[in-house]
Amino acid sequence: MGIIKKIFNKSRSPEDGIFFEEMRKILGFNPVELSHYRKGFTHRSSNKTDENGNPINYERLEFLGDAMLGSVIAAHLFKEVPTGDEGYLTKMRSKIVSREHLNELGRDLNLIKWVESKVSAQHFGENIHGNLFEAFVGAIYLDRGFTYCEKFINKKVIVPYVDIPKLEGKVISYKSLVIEWCQKEKKQFHYDVFEDNGNEDVKHFGVRLKIDGKIVAKARATSKKKAEEKASQRAYFAFQEKINKK
Amino acid sequence: MGIIKKIFNKSRSPEDGIFFEEMRKILGFNPVELSHYRKGFTHRSSNKTDENGNPINYERLEFLGDAMLGSVIAAHLFKEVPTGDEGYLTKMRSKIVSREHLNELGRDLNLIKWVESKVSAQHFGENIHGNLFEAFVGAIYLDRGFTYCEKFINKKVIVPYVDIPKLEGKVISYKSLVIEWCQKEKKQFHYDVFEDNGNEDVKHFGVRLKIDGKIVAKARATSKKKAEEKASQRAYFAFQEKINKK
Repeated sequence: MGIIKKIFNKSRSPEDGIFFEEMRKILGFNPVELSHYRKGFTHRSSNKTDENGNPINYERLEFLGDAMLGSVIAAHLFKEVPTGDEGYLTKMRSKIVSREHLNELGRDLNLIKWVESKVSAQHFGENIHGNLFEAFVGAIYLDRGFTYCEKFINKKVIVPYVDIPKLEGKVISYKSLVIEWCQKEKKQFHYDVFEDNGNEDVKHFGVRLKIDGKIVAKARATSKKKAEEKASQRAYFAFQEKINKK
Repeated sequence: MGIIKKIFNKSRSPEDGIFFEEMRKILGFNPVELSHYRKGFTHRSSNKTDENGNPINYERLEFLGDAMLGSVIAAHLFKEVPTGDEGYLTKMRSKIVSREHLNELGRDLNLIKWVESKVSAQHFGENIHGNLFEAFVGAIYLDRGFTYCEKFINKKVIVPYVDIPKLEGKVISYKSLVIEWCQKEKKQFHYDVFEDNGNEDVKHFGVRLKIDGKIVAKARATSKKKAEEKASQRAYFAFQEKINKK
């Protein structure tokens, strides 16, 4: 495998080498056939066709990715919520794969950066982010199969975004829970930005939550608000664990 | 693996042994954890619960199986019809996984035979066949994972039922095409039943199509009509191949 990888790397053009590296970063594993991902970024306006005259763009891949997302999320919810009936599972899945959520996922990965198109970015509209995300998942399926799709969706969708109590509407915001608790317990709290590259292409913020001067949680996200929420959630779960252990 | 299998077989009760064998026949491969399939046949009327009080029945498995069916069929159509756009693929998939079609699939496998229930079969309604089929696919996913789901769906759904020209509405009936051709070419045709166990639990018919006294195709199916149609389709494709080779 090592040798094959080396040969493979040698035969790759410098441009492909960069694309390979960037895809690897997003995927968390090696892509094999780069053409699937390139197709996943080809907007219909580029009017590309294959040797048989079939259009090359990411729209068919959206269909495939949407199906893979649906089944990976279904399997996750099925295992995670043994008490949820069919109606509950269906409702929760549609919350997770909502248009709004898919747009957020695509935007956070900055997939639009790679789009090949003949129209300028402002004509795309908001849904392009979600469409690119679906197409990207479709490309992963073609390239590496279902297991890698599952791996990717787990890392990029389930772990960072699928928070069941929140989706159930039981918890609106972990930040508000933390603030409420601090006020009740007469504790000082402070959200502190320790990393900020908001001017770069891929925005990135680090926030830590201090309670009575002690750092209780840290988190990174693509906005200050999200990083605060993530840090609050971590603090909340850490507290829950402590309480449960008592 | 051989040894594990033997141990496994020895520790199985006679009742489980029969269930294992019957499941193996339907699946086309070995089941591992029989409890998934048993759950897949447990109707809500049996009022079973697990140790935590969660109901045990096949309704949650329907949700899982539906998702797996959707993604396996999506992947098949994506690869099989490179000219089909997103709208086409979506439409074709809904034809394949239509309620009517799922009922037909469940009925053909006679899944209802295994249902554990406290109400009698006549109260179930037609949709139980499709529901059992979906739940069965869900059980396969839990027991053996996505690849085996794909194997099963390929063997039991795609190969025998997914006929793209027919689904597209381009071909209504292969039998009518064959008859038309025979009349045009002044050839004698005859559909001949060579197998008939229509009185048994799982109905089964064998039909051969003779043209000018020569057998050109044979097929088996759960009704005479279906077997005739299948034989006609085989004859049609065989003729197409001959024409293409000329």
